[in-house]
Amino acid sequence: MDWRARLAEYLPPRRARVDAALEAYLTGAPSMPRALLEAMRYATLGAGKRLRPILCIAAAEAMGSDIEQVIPTACALELIHAFSLVHDDLPAMDNDRLRRGQPTVWVRYGETLAILAGDALFAKAFELIAVQAQFSPPDRVVQTLRLIAEAVGASGMCGGQVEDILNEGQAVSEETLRFIHAHKTGALIRASVLSGAILAGADSVAVGALDVYSRAVGIAFQITDDILDESASTEQMGKPAGSDRARRKATYTALFGVETARIHAQRALQDALDALEQFDSYAEPLRWLAYYAVERDR
Amino acid sequence: MDWRARLAEYLPPRRARVDAALEAYLTGAPSMPRALLEAMRYATLGAGKRLRPILCIAAAEAMGSDIEQVIPTACALELIHAFSLVHDDLPAMDNDRLRRGQPTVWVRYGETLAILAGDALFAKAFELIAVQAQFSPPDRVVQTLRLIAEAVGASGMCGGQVEDILNEGQAVSEETLRFIHAHKTGALIRASVLSGAILAGADSVAVGALDVYSRAVGIAFQITDDILDESASTEQMGKPAGSDRARRKATYTALFGVETARIHAQRALQDALDALEQFDSYAEPLRWLAYYAVERDR
Repeated sequence: MDWRARLAEYLPPRRARVDAALEAYLTGAPSMPRALLEAMRYATLGAGKRLRPILCIAAAEAMGSDIEQVIPTACALELIHAFSLVHDDLPAMDNDRLRRGQPTVWVRYGETLAILAGDALFAKAFELIAVQAQFSPPDRVVQTLRLIAEAVGASGMCGGQVEDILNEGQAVSEETLRFIHAHKTGALIRASVLSGAILAGADSVAVGALDVYSRAVGIAFQITDDILDESASTEQMGKPAGSDRARRKATYTALFGVETARIHAQRALQDALDALEQFDSYAEPLRWLAYYAVERDR
Repeated sequence: MDWRARLAEYLPPRRARVDAALEAYLTGAPSMPRALLEAMRYATLGAGKRLRPILCIAAAEAMGSDIEQVIPTACALELIHAFSLVHDDLPAMDNDRLRRGQPTVWVRYGETLAILAGDALFAKAFELIAVQAQFSPPDRVVQTLRLIAEAVGASGMCGGQVEDILNEGQAVSEETLRFIHAHKTGALIRASVLSGAILAGADSVAVGALDVYSRAVGIAFQITDDILDESASTEQMGKPAGSDRARRKATYTALFGVETARIHAQRALQDALDALEQFDSYAEPLRWLAYYAVERDR
């Protein structure tokens, strides 16, 4: 299947719609401190794959809904992703100075504004989840609120980041590695897919299948990230190549080597495709995105 | 009116109920990193006036509802308050080492865990707002979600904190001072009162009156905080007395002097009481809390 050609048609209009919405949502009220808004916009606009919004949109489309019906939540997911990157880059965290080839928020605006811009992006995300109620029944909005909040918190992204940092420089077990990735990146990817489906009115069988799909896709993305970090050049990555290894972060490639990691990624891709078996052609974009997770080159 | 005696009866059972609920909500799932949960609990449990939950509860009671109907949201407000204190105390922010007589979270657990515990408390707060839907119609929950998220974000608490830090060490105008406090502390106090009222089914006239009440109470609390910071001993405050002045933070006492600040506080108290004129005896606790805002001694 020529997923590359299909995605090349599928992604650009959706990314453009998400980018336009983010731009509109991140317009300041007169009472908003200018420097804070600037840091929030710097952290969010511009480069970025918009993977989480796209997964949310593709899941909604798989259930017969359309882009416009989930735009606020799709953007909320991107703001949460942006917030997490801003905080992860801080000196007290990963101490990263470069992201997507640009100075990180704390390098550009200072630590104080980086912490607060992260917090404010996080708050804005939940404001957008409330805005979603203009398009969706409020009980569905509350369901996605819970799902997304849990995905971010101590049992999700924050918990994964803690484990990752606590284990830095140590040899980790496969179990710990899977825990870190399932929480640090997997939880929000899962919430992205499921929130799109729930807002579109998916029944519990469909949600169950997409749960399996989203976990597999999360793993596929993460393994591929590790492989790309290992093999790509600095220019391709927008951050120093091999930087995770240099810092002795827990990675699939460090644990298994590149070849075995590739096999794991292929298995995750197959799991993701199998989970979609019951779905019709509306779910095609979710299938292309699973291929993309594993076979992209950046 | 003997508000002290009335509050001495009113507050303890409600604080105890909120404390018990917070304790239960901050119990770890097995998959949660232990150190993270510990830092979250340290930041939240133990001392604390529980002012925001109490205001939420008192507003719900004023509308004829009862405590149990708003417990998740009342606790969410306290978690947001706790999150904001954890981040505000960080070295890159106010660099405070002591709060309520104890080492701050970053001193005790390190900066990394302090940032992440703050983020995780913030996420948990929004999870609890979703839990509120077990007691309230989902459209009311969505309304409070929006209100609370806006109160925390760039147009609220985060924006106020940015202005506060940007103006540190400078002489500020009355306008800037009012902006800082209306946003940094006032916005969440307002959201606390209004969310309790909305969950209890308040109509727009009542919400309008409570809007005025909550803004006045927020001002009253802040001016009184400044006066207490100026005059109380370190032991009473749990932080070095006069520490805001020493850091040349914008305060009412620095701008107006203690005597004029007291007059402003009394005027805010009167505004708060006037706003409640239309309400019946169910609103008595809101009246006592307005007196408490101004006449407490710690």
